Amino acid sequence: MDNSRNGFHPATLIRDFDQGKTSRLSDGRILREWTLVAQEKEIEVAPGVTFPAWAYNGRVPGPTLRATEGERLRITLVNHSAHAHTIHFHGLHAAAVDGTAGVGLGLVQPGEQTVYEFDAEPYGLHLYHCHVTPLAHHIAKGLYGVFLIDPKEARPEADELVMVMNGFDTNFDRANELYAVNTIPFVYMSEPVKVTVGEPVRIYLVNVLEYDLVNSFHVHGNFFDWYPTGTSKKPVEHTDTVMLCQGQRGILEITFPREGRFMFHAHQSEFAELGWMGFFEAGPRKEPVT
Amino acid sequence: MDNSRNGFHPATLIRDFDQGKTSRLSDGRILREWTLVAQEKEIEVAPGVTFPAWAYNGRVPGPTLRATEGERLRITLVNHSAHAHTIHFHGLHAAAVDGTAGVGLGLVQPGEQTVYEFDAEPYGLHLYHCHVTPLAHHIAKGLYGVFLIDPKEARPEADELVMVMNGFDTNFDRANELYAVNTIPFVYMSEPVKVTVGEPVRIYLVNVLEYDLVNSFHVHGNFFDWYPTGTSKKPVEHTDTVMLCQGQRGILEITFPREGRFMFHAHQSEFAELGWMGFFEAGPRKEPVT
Amino acid sequence: MDNSRNGFHPATLIRDFDQGKTSRLSDGRILREWTLVAQEKEIEVAPGVTFPAWAYNGRVPGPTLRATEGERLRITLVNHSAHAHTIHFHGLHAAAVDGTAGVGLGLVQPGEQTVYEFDAEPYGLHLYHCHVTPLAHHIAKGLYGVFLIDPKEARPEADELVMVMNGFDTNFDRANELYAVNTIPFVYMSEPVKVTVGEPVRIYLVNVLEYDLVNSFHVHGNFFDWYPTGTSKKPVEHTDTVMLCQGQRGILEITFPREGRFMFHAHQSEFAELGWMGFFEAGPRKEPVT
Repeated sequence: MDNSRNGFHPATLIRDFDQGKTSRLSDGRILREWTLVAQEKEIEVAPGVTFPAWAYNGRVPGPTLRATEGERLRITLVNHSAHAHTIHFHGLHAAAVDGTAGVGLGLVQPGEQTVYEFDAEPYGLHLYHCHVTPLAHHIAKGLYGVFLIDPKEARPEADELVMVMNGFDTNFDRANELYAVNTIPFVYMSEPVKVTVGEPVRIYLVNVLEYDLVNSFHVHGNFFDWYPTGTSKKPVEHTDTVMLCQGQRGILEITFPREGRFMFHAHQSEFAELGWMGFFEAGPRKEPVT
Repeated sequence: MDNSRNGFHPATLIRDFDQGKTSRLSDGRILREWTLVAQEKEIEVAPGVTFPAWAYNGRVPGPTLRATEGERLRITLVNHSAHAHTIHFHGLHAAAVDGTAGVGLGLVQPGEQTVYEFDAEPYGLHLYHCHVTPLAHHIAKGLYGVFLIDPKEARPEADELVMVMNGFDTNFDRANELYAVNTIPFVYMSEPVKVTVGEPVRIYLVNVLEYDLVNSFHVHGNFFDWYPTGTSKKPVEHTDTVMLCQGQRGILEITFPREGRFMFHAHQSEFAELGWMGFFEAGPRKEPVT
Repeated sequence: MDNSRNGFHPATLIRDFDQGKTSRLSDGRILREWTLVAQEKEIEVAPGVTFPAWAYNGRVPGPTLRATEGERLRITLVNHSAHAHTIHFHGLHAAAVDGTAGVGLGLVQPGEQTVYEFDAEPYGLHLYHCHVTPLAHHIAKGLYGVFLIDPKEARPEADELVMVMNGFDTNFDRANELYAVNTIPFVYMSEPVKVTVGEPVRIYLVNVLEYDLVNSFHVHGNFFDWYPTGTSKKPVEHTDTVMLCQGQRGILEITFPREGRFMFHAHQSEFAELGWMGFFEAGPRKEPVT
């Protein structure tokens, strides 16, 4: 399967943080801006299997929007699709800029555009998704992405990864036939996620899976610290398995003590066997620079 | 839809705490007493759709029983229904007063009554429900309510709300056709829950949903502190989404910083679209009294 | 039903910790060894209902392997069954000794054997299971058990219990017809788990249930402290209900203040009514020895 055909690739998307375009407001604060274009997009989700997705900026998940707490954010949604859409952001904002059908800025009709503007708060790991009825359909089609707000005092340096747990209902029976992180089933089996022994890895994990009530993340041979919603710098659990419902998310911090290939997957066997599994490939510890 | 026909209304029920009747025991402690009557009750759960509920005191959920830790509690169950029922309380109590078929006080037959008596402990958010076989049926029919034990040293003042997440199997296929908080689908869409900017809101959230494995609570544009089971005064998470299985419950503390209508709903799209969604309407900050 | 026919009995299995065979390594550390034999095994899961299980050492769940952090562990898997199997351990280990089909030591063919060797870390409650495709099938057939690593500084003394939440798909429709802790539905209803008033009880609770997305544990009339994954000595919640997905586990600490029979069960009514319920029988407080 040629992942380049989709115009995005899970192997690069996993480390792709979109920091937008910045400028200074008159009060000295940073204004951070993005434009998201909603459009129809055929995605090859398995060899020879295309899914008629709805996508922000031509990718599923959409771009990982990354800001720092306290900044002013301005996101323009341009609707190039044939259906009305919105962007609903998790995080704090005024009711007037909520992107829910019938609420706040409401529907953005085909050919139109609107601007969501609010401050970045609270720090933590959030998400955004279309909030148009039928909600399950608009989410399951692919209109979602990660919205990350870094704390003012940055977290310690780490190799940072984005993992969006999703699935695809390829026969439109309101149940998923394929499961994945970052859209392409099994992709990290053939192209493992490369990490380095001794180097902290920080995973921004978001569950957007539609139709199934829960999802989970399990890693082999290694343990991680778990920060639910990422709103605290103190972990609540040291484990190898976490469970999330749709809309839940959290930060995993993990340092691989040993080289080798370590599987990660949902601990729902069905999800794992239908695509939601992959490998970390932990490479040799880096020599200290002398 | 005329909610008054049911004899109870989610708009008032949400702030309705039943503190029973109190007196002093010879040792100086407070004795707190309630009477709950189990009976058949037709409830209009959607315009023109009636559900043949089983109810405590004619309402679903039953009354929110509120006590303070250390008090003596006495609850009389009077069974005016055609089936045997019980009340099983979550919380500490002797085996002899457990209200489970075949255990403790056992079945209360039609026309009979029994008394559950125990101390209020531990402080926290609990629930009560009928515990007769078939269990799923006796719960899904509506025999449940909130059992709240305040700590001796009271929590800070707040605008307090009770939200019971439930659902209705209107065609008796052991799956829910309608979902709600406090029984009536969509009721808080047309009659938003009014709160005040800057004033702490405390939500007592209980999940009793039958037939579905989990439920969840998500709020738009705002975050809350989460106290699972309400047994600690220290929150474990700052988030906008929590997941609960049946019997789980917790306290949310939230202060709305801005005026406006903010949606809240299950983050299971299906539940939301079948009724489990509503609005908070945050009104202007109160002027300080001078 | 004659539980002795199965060669193992939930009433003894619940307190059966297998500490293996120990010796000293040249560096002074303890080497702890076990042999697990995978084999076909008919289990009578309900009166007259046999399930064609796959079992480690002839029991479902397999033996509860118990070690102390820092020890060297050596587990030999001997495959006396007609199918290839593995043991995948939750916990830290090198990729080379991971027991997953196609990874590390890979498949152990019928008639063959292999050795998993690694250090016991981190302390906490873990599990092991076969990790051969189709994964759901190899787990649901019974190839799993508890892997417990005690901290070097031992937890306080307690009456310790092992509870593995599982289920059985007796008609092979990829859904469970029977639910249990420790395999035999309702067994602790007729033979309650005996505990003592005032004596701390520590429950090692593991969920391996296949086909259903979550499972839970609820106890009547009593509360417990909850230590998810058992990797901390500080509880995160004081409650009477916890929810777990497959692969999740944790430690419950509970002291019964009163004598009597207290029910425990899943708070999914369906699971409870199909077998996942039992009793604690709290007996009189022990007289202090004088």
